[in-house]
Amino acid sequence: MIHNIKLILEYNGKNYSGWQKQPGKRTIQSEVEAAIKDLTTEDVDLYASGRTDAGVHALGQVASFNTESKIEPDRLVLALNSKLPKDIVILKASYEDMDFHARFSARAKRYRYVIYKRRQRSVFMADMSYHIRYKLDVEKMKNEATAIVGKHDFTSFVSSGSSAKSNVREIYDITVEEDEDTIVIEICGNGFLYNMVRIIVGTLVDIGRGKIGMSMEEIIAAKDRNKAGHTAPPQGLFLKEVIY
Amino acid sequence: MIHNIKLILEYNGKNYSGWQKQPGKRTIQSEVEAAIKDLTTEDVDLYASGRTDAGVHALGQVASFNTESKIEPDRLVLALNSKLPKDIVILKASYEDMDFHARFSARAKRYRYVIYKRRQRSVFMADMSYHIRYKLDVEKMKNEATAIVGKHDFTSFVSSGSSAKSNVREIYDITVEEDEDTIVIEICGNGFLYNMVRIIVGTLVDIGRGKIGMSMEEIIAAKDRNKAGHTAPPQGLFLKEVIY
Repeated sequence: MIHNIKLILEYNGKNYSGWQKQPGKRTIQSEVEAAIKDLTTEDVDLYASGRTDAGVHALGQVASFNTESKIEPDRLVLALNSKLPKDIVILKASYEDMDFHARFSARAKRYRYVIYKRRQRSVFMADMSYHIRYKLDVEKMKNEATAIVGKHDFTSFVSSGSSAKSNVREIYDITVEEDEDTIVIEICGNGFLYNMVRIIVGTLVDIGRGKIGMSMEEIIAAKDRNKAGHTAPPQGLFLKEVIY
Repeated sequence: MIHNIKLILEYNGKNYSGWQKQPGKRTIQSEVEAAIKDLTTEDVDLYASGRTDAGVHALGQVASFNTESKIEPDRLVLALNSKLPKDIVILKASYEDMDFHARFSARAKRYRYVIYKRRQRSVFMADMSYHIRYKLDVEKMKNEATAIVGKHDFTSFVSSGSSAKSNVREIYDITVEEDEDTIVIEICGNGFLYNMVRIIVGTLVDIGRGKIGMSMEEIIAAKDRNKAGHTAPPQGLFLKEVIY
């Protein structure tokens, strides 16, 4: 009998060339597939909700695979975690219907992006945030951010190399929250183009420091990558949750 | 002219054999002294408010040294940080009177201890917390913790190897705060014996899991290390602040 298993994973992307298997590279997918093989002797194909790039982290990535193994989900979690390196952990495993697929069944994703703004670098947050020393107008960033909510053509916010057929996506909400040392941006939407979250963040940063005079609304309308800001670096980005 | 300089430092103790210089070991003191020498060509003696053990972190360690260098404190911070490894950072430097000494002038210290209590290990907090999977009665820990406030003989909470003349110390306050994944204990006192914070935390943990039946008050009164709990591991401990 074949089981369809859903995994929820947390990982620190620092030492990985992203999610996807690549010859000669250390990736999250290959580590988890190797742990599954070690446990079940099966060569499974593990599908994630989406690839994460090199250096990007996950608080709640979802992946699914088929197995003939009879190991119960709760025991699978313990067994895999004992085999995985310490920067990858399975938070939960569950049986799903055979038509569940981590990527194709996903309805929405939530990302978190962390900016660290203390003048001196942090010895604890360096690999988990984007360190920005210059002054940002956070109120302006909050106001401009709301323009991306709704269904839009996000051509201005996609890196070349994207293979998407359409650049239309719907953003459900975005929040920009500041505390003493950090600015945390969270974005939830039905799907994201290649580098889209990092370009949205980079654009908000460039608006916040006064480097871009156009409004977010104008940048969206321009459908031109050159009108948006820089691509914020990967280490500040966390895939927080996938919603099914 | 000789200047007396006070430094406030943050460091991640993970890759260090503690604060104090030791032949053939990587220590915080040797890294900072090497950076100062690189900058000023002087062989300075850098005194900390107190040694931190291997694996222990600092959010606000204080150290002082004498120098003939004319470099202004603000520039010293930038120059040293450009030379230091990325797990050590100087947060602030200032001129002090010649009678200021990081260790002997300290009036109080505040420590933070972080317990991580999610069932699955954390890929982000592993080196910055004590992972505890068993159930803890946090209300009981809060109630028992208050017994250590005041002036007491802390003989029950000192590791053998301590060279202190007296084991009497005064604790000003202790807090135990729980959120979803962590329990954070903060302790402020006029001084701490060898491993004292870690033994207090280990004892509260053992009380919280029901492994110790004696009250904190009784354990203090016993003046016997064997009556207290285990020594909590170093990676959960942070020297938060030194008060002068």
